[in-house]
This record gives sequence, C-alpha cells and structure tokens, in this order.
Amino acid sequence: MTTLLALFRRPEGGAAALDAFEHAYAQTHLPLIAATPGLRSMRSDRVVEGLGAATDLVLITAMTFDDRATLDAGLASEEMRVAGRNLRQIAPGLSTLLVLEDASELVPVDWR
Amino acid sequence: MTTLLALFRRPEGGAAALDAFEHAYAQTHLPLIAATPGLRSMRSDRVVEGLGAATDLVLITAMTFDDRATLDAGLASEEMRVAGRNLRQIAPGLSTLLVLEDASELVPVDWR
Repeated sequence: MTTLLALFRRPEGGAAALDAFEHAYAQTHLPLIAATPGLRSMRSDRVVEGLGAATDLVLITAMTFDDRATLDAGLASEEMRVAGRNLRQIAPGLSTLLVLEDASELVPVDWR
Repeated sequence: MTTLLALFRRPEGGAAALDAFEHAYAQTHLPLIAATPGLRSMRSDRVVEGLGAATDLVLITAMTFDDRATLDAGLASEEMRVAGRNLRQIAPGLSTLLVLEDASELVPVDWR
C-alpha cells in the first residue's frame, strides 16, 4: 500500500485562524480529495501534543492508494490539481506532503 | 482513538547507517513497543519521497490506543520506559513523538 501523508503546520493568527483553516479544509479541501481517482481511504487526526518537544504541526491526513502507480495517476488527475489549487489558497506554505510505502515487515509478526 | 506517532529522521552515515537503524528498530525496539499495556495496533511506513520539497524523514510508526488515558498509562509503563531507553541508544535525537486525536468529523461522511 502507498500512502500520501499531508502534515499541516499551525497557521498564524491564533485559535481563530486554526478554526478557519479546519473549517475550510473540511468543507472545501477534503471533498475535493475524496474525488481523486484510486483513493482507497482517508483519515485525519489532530496533533494535540508533541512529547518531549513542542510541535508546530496541527493536523495530519493519510490518504491511501493500492500502489505507487495508482497514487501517481491520482496526483496527475484533474481532481487532485483542483485540490492542490484549493490547498494553496486555504493553507499557503503550511503543508508537507510525503509518500509512504508500507514497511510492515519491520513490525512483529503478531501485529502485522 | 488516540495515536502515538513516531517520526524518524535520517541518521548520519548514508545507506549503511539507515540499514543499521532499521534493523535495530525492527529487532529491538518494536518488540519492546509491542509489549506496551493498552497498545491496540502498530504500523510502520517508510518515507520514500517528499512531494515538492525534500524531506529528512525516513520512517513513521503509528501506535494506537483506545483513548488518551490508556496512552498515558502505556507511556508511564515499565515496558515503555525500557523502549524509550532503547530508542535513545539506536536513534539518538532522531525521533519526534506526537500525540494525535481522531478528527474523523472533518472527513466526508462516506469516507469515515
């Protein structure tokens, strides 16, 4: 499985700016992401605390695809282009996008 | 659901150092993590690429617990103390630990 992981840093402007980002993200961005061809699942989590050190991250979304080719086709789609444009409007410069590949062979057998 | 997310940066020393870290992580660290009271699931993914910008992250592990109280009890356990000591040996200064809380209300209803 291939995962597109989006990490979002805290916007400037305090709690009101964070609320506005979350609202726009849920109302405008994730519905666009949901239309991406090949998307298998999506999941969002709030970052509530960094352990041992403060973090500037506030939200993380994982989007899974069957494999890298399917992700690449999704990234090249019109739907993802529109979603990318939207993201640059609602969270300019605040996101990091990572491509992850399943490494379940590292995990103890009983937990795979 | 509460998730403990561990993000690992690339160790110095090239591919050999990364291989050594992965080996120690799989053979010594994750078996210790697996013994943590209250752990519900664990999952590791390799970071294979940053989109739009390079990344120094190489591995991400998600460990889930029923709720924050269960995670806190797990973090305070002898098992996690031993795992933390191990981590400081095999990847000193290379990890970021985040506490995440499910934000599925942000996701379109059909995808929750």
